[in-house]
Amino acid sequence: MKKHLLFYLLLPLALAASAQEQVDQAMVQKIRKEGLENSRAMEIAFNLTDVSGPRLSNSPGLKRAQDWAMTVFKDWGLKNVQREAWGTFGRGWQIDKYYAATTLPFYHAIIASPKAWTPGTKGPIKSEVILLKADSLPELEKYKGTLAGKIVMFDQGTALENSYKPDAVRHADSTLAKMEAAVPQESRGRQRSANNMMAQYMRMRTQRANMAKWLTSQNVGLILTYARGGHGTFFTSNGASYDVGAEAVSPELEVSPEDYLHMLRLLRAGKKVEVEADIKTSFYGDDTKGYNVLAEIPGTDKKLKDEVVIIGGHFDSWHAATGATDNAAGATVMMEAMRILKAVGFKPKRTIRVALWSSEEQGLHGSKNYVLNHFGDAKTQKFTPDQKKVSAYYNLDNGTGKIRGVYLQGNSAVAPLFKAWLEPFTDLGAKTITIGNTGGTDHLSFDAVGIPGFQFIQDPMDYNTRTHHTNQDTYDRLVEDDLKQAATIVASFVYHTSERAAMLPRKELPPVAQQ
Amino acid sequence: MKKHLLFYLLLPLALAASAQEQVDQAMVQKIRKEGLENSRAMEIAFNLTDVSGPRLSNSPGLKRAQDWAMTVFKDWGLKNVQREAWGTFGRGWQIDKYYAATTLPFYHAIIASPKAWTPGTKGPIKSEVILLKADSLPELEKYKGTLAGKIVMFDQGTALENSYKPDAVRHADSTLAKMEAAVPQESRGRQRSANNMMAQYMRMRTQRANMAKWLTSQNVGLILTYARGGHGTFFTSNGASYDVGAEAVSPELEVSPEDYLHMLRLLRAGKKVEVEADIKTSFYGDDTKGYNVLAEIPGTDKKLKDEVVIIGGHFDSWHAATGATDNAAGATVMMEAMRILKAVGFKPKRTIRVALWSSEEQGLHGSKNYVLNHFGDAKTQKFTPDQKKVSAYYNLDNGTGKIRGVYLQGNSAVAPLFKAWLEPFTDLGAKTITIGNTGGTDHLSFDAVGIPGFQFIQDPMDYNTRTHHTNQDTYDRLVEDDLKQAATIVASFVYHTSERAAMLPRKELPPVAQQ
Repeated sequence: MKKHLLFYLLLPLALAASAQEQVDQAMVQKIRKEGLENSRAMEIAFNLTDVSGPRLSNSPGLKRAQDWAMTVFKDWGLKNVQREAWGTFGRGWQIDKYYAATTLPFYHAIIASPKAWTPGTKGPIKSEVILLKADSLPELEKYKGTLAGKIVMFDQGTALENSYKPDAVRHADSTLAKMEAAVPQESRGRQRSANNMMAQYMRMRTQRANMAKWLTSQNVGLILTYARGGHGTFFTSNGASYDVGAEAVSPELEVSPEDYLHMLRLLRAGKKVEVEADIKTSFYGDDTKGYNVLAEIPGTDKKLKDEVVIIGGHFDSWHAATGATDNAAGATVMMEAMRILKAVGFKPKRTIRVALWSSEEQGLHGSKNYVLNHFGDAKTQKFTPDQKKVSAYYNLDNGTGKIRGVYLQGNSAVAPLFKAWLEPFTDLGAKTITIGNTGGTDHLSFDAVGIPGFQFIQDPMDYNTRTHHTNQDTYDRLVEDDLKQAATIVASFVYHTSERAAMLPRKELPPVAQQ
Repeated sequence: MKKHLLFYLLLPLALAASAQEQVDQAMVQKIRKEGLENSRAMEIAFNLTDVSGPRLSNSPGLKRAQDWAMTVFKDWGLKNVQREAWGTFGRGWQIDKYYAATTLPFYHAIIASPKAWTPGTKGPIKSEVILLKADSLPELEKYKGTLAGKIVMFDQGTALENSYKPDAVRHADSTLAKMEAAVPQESRGRQRSANNMMAQYMRMRTQRANMAKWLTSQNVGLILTYARGGHGTFFTSNGASYDVGAEAVSPELEVSPEDYLHMLRLLRAGKKVEVEADIKTSFYGDDTKGYNVLAEIPGTDKKLKDEVVIIGGHFDSWHAATGATDNAAGATVMMEAMRILKAVGFKPKRTIRVALWSSEEQGLHGSKNYVLNHFGDAKTQKFTPDQKKVSAYYNLDNGTGKIRGVYLQGNSAVAPLFKAWLEPFTDLGAKTITIGNTGGTDHLSFDAVGIPGFQFIQDPMDYNTRTHHTNQDTYDRLVEDDLKQAATIVASFVYHTSERAAMLPRKELPPVAQQ
């Protein structure tokens, strides 16, 4: 620990050396001009969202978006454009019809969405809503034999409160300064607490799964579930299983909090609530493999062309909207960065590869398996020869906000490089590097096998309050100037990563199976 | 003008005299205890919103709420409880079914609401959406004969932007200080500008009405209209005519901006959009009269019992939600104030009357006609004897926000009274009086015939951003502590208005027909 601390205290000295890292100002200017003045980011985003629709793993919407991406990659002159299978995912799914409304005490159309991978209602149903006052399987038993065809909901839901904070924010300078000054912290205590929370969560999940299974055995017509959010926005959660052999589950709606709480208050007060619904969903099991889309600008330097710079972001989304900020935004930026590099006539020394991952939302499946297939196994830490040839992986997956800097992911040796490469973009608000980690998305798959994998720091905007996994993650949320800025910076990072003499320095790999 | 200015500069001296106005501290304490500790505000609000539903003028929802209010008024021991006709309103209306979704380019359920007083779709319809590129009747002619049964929308809609401001705010002390310091301004210039805007608006409205009429003549299946808002919230606008003899109009949906803009972007890009819809609405023409609900605590002082203190708020709402902040909140506070006064055993000298107006949303019809029927004609300024017997009218209609003070509505002579009556509530945030006016609701009906009519200053909360006239104006938006505070203060104001020796001083009436 002491050694670590000393190490990080020396970081400012390392940064001072950044002047030695080469920046090709002429190329930066070309990239800026192309990225900021001839951007096609919004056209890309439009096609991924408005035209393709929700891009749930293995859904027709994802397939449409993948087809479109491959077409434009080819149009732009990228090479080795392909949809590459990464392994077995499971069934695709989509909503074919959603309709639900209260009919008692008065008519009111309900804002909700079928939970992903749940079945429809086998035609229109109408029923009194039964309030299940049960927190466990034994408590449910009292309803045995009474629920067939009925619409049910549990007696739980958090009352809404006014928020006096803005939905959307940009990082304040002070926040960025704090990130820049951060030193890694001893995490064992937090880990233990996280483990406790996870254990508790898993117990709760098992209990809920058992209760859901019991409800299915009782042939309930439809389960209504509280979805957090507010004002017509609601967050979707994980759906039912997408496995081919998954057990049957009940039709289930995630209901916006206003509409759920309305029914809950009425039922708690002993009033009768009646709901009618008509839900149709489709499962797609013909091809259960998962696919990533890949494309390249091949390297041209004899010695370096087998080395690779990879950029990417996940292409899949949740189902209740068109996943504009999660993660059409990141995918758009990465696609547009490739377009910029082609448009400026860049002939890279190393090969540039773009990857549009699938099934990130179900556990980084696309990137994890791509890495497993090509670079090695994070568990055994046995790697392929290609693992040594990837200089860096850059990811974007935190919404529409512009780039404010980079998370070093603990790799302090890259600090001087990134500091130098950000320097031409300080006027666009990007200048912060933090030794800190960020998690939750596909750079982790690379980081896990010792390949330098990075995610950029982005302005948060309304990602956590309104868009991320919600029914309101639509094209409207995208900020054109931010996407342009991000694509420009990514293109420049890729350029410099490709052209510098050496590959990016790597972190020491953690000992195998430490945890 | 000079005289006026001098007059207002003297206002602080008038305020200094406030110590002479009597405040019954013992009664204030009783009222506070009942209002803050035994409140039934949320129970009242629950019944007006969750149980009764939308309370559009003359709708079954309004009738349900009126019935409930009369029942509880009687339960509380109020007298002369009645639903009083104020004249002819027109037809009632309600939504019996709302369903709409895009089916091309992919399935997506649309968040929208039938426009008030529009017909349904005569069963399920499904059609390609026709984008009408026309700003006037002649430009529409090119579509002649092509629109029968089709779903249409106009080529207009404002792109959404991120907001970096909170949806909900409370008044800052500085804002209240500015209101307190305000002097009335010369308004002729603003009036002229307002007249221009109104003329422009009326021209646009006429043009739109003509275009809508033409579309009906072409038998369009459904008109989709852009509704402002965001994130699943949308604002409803004025609907079609509620007159018994109104000409037929087309079915029309007000569509949340995200869903409207989605279709608009696709259509502008030349993509095919298909929508299916099934809308049923009902009109109610059996009783076209409009009704207010009234109830009293009769006065007990021989000399003063014919004099009246009136409190009220409008009871009707728009149709896309349950009108919690507009204006179940105000109605709840006024009802609860009556309950408090009964609960503390108050035997008023003057008669206390509560009025729950209808059809405020269509032009203050309920209160205007009540005033016309009982107190006189604002146009001719001919008044009944009863006009002289109303000491004051207090109104609440600005959402759930607590009371921060009172608009004097230009009546500076009441300043010392109100200042004194607010004094026991400064700890609850209510202390500001402003000479300024506020408009838009039912106190204006009284002000227009020379009866002192007041509306309280309230914290704005998210009234203008999220709740007022929206599909998200639900019980969830109500802040219990704020409603309790407001009811307590109103009860105390009513008490003091009733018990003081003289009626409230009146403003000089403006000359007849000056405008």
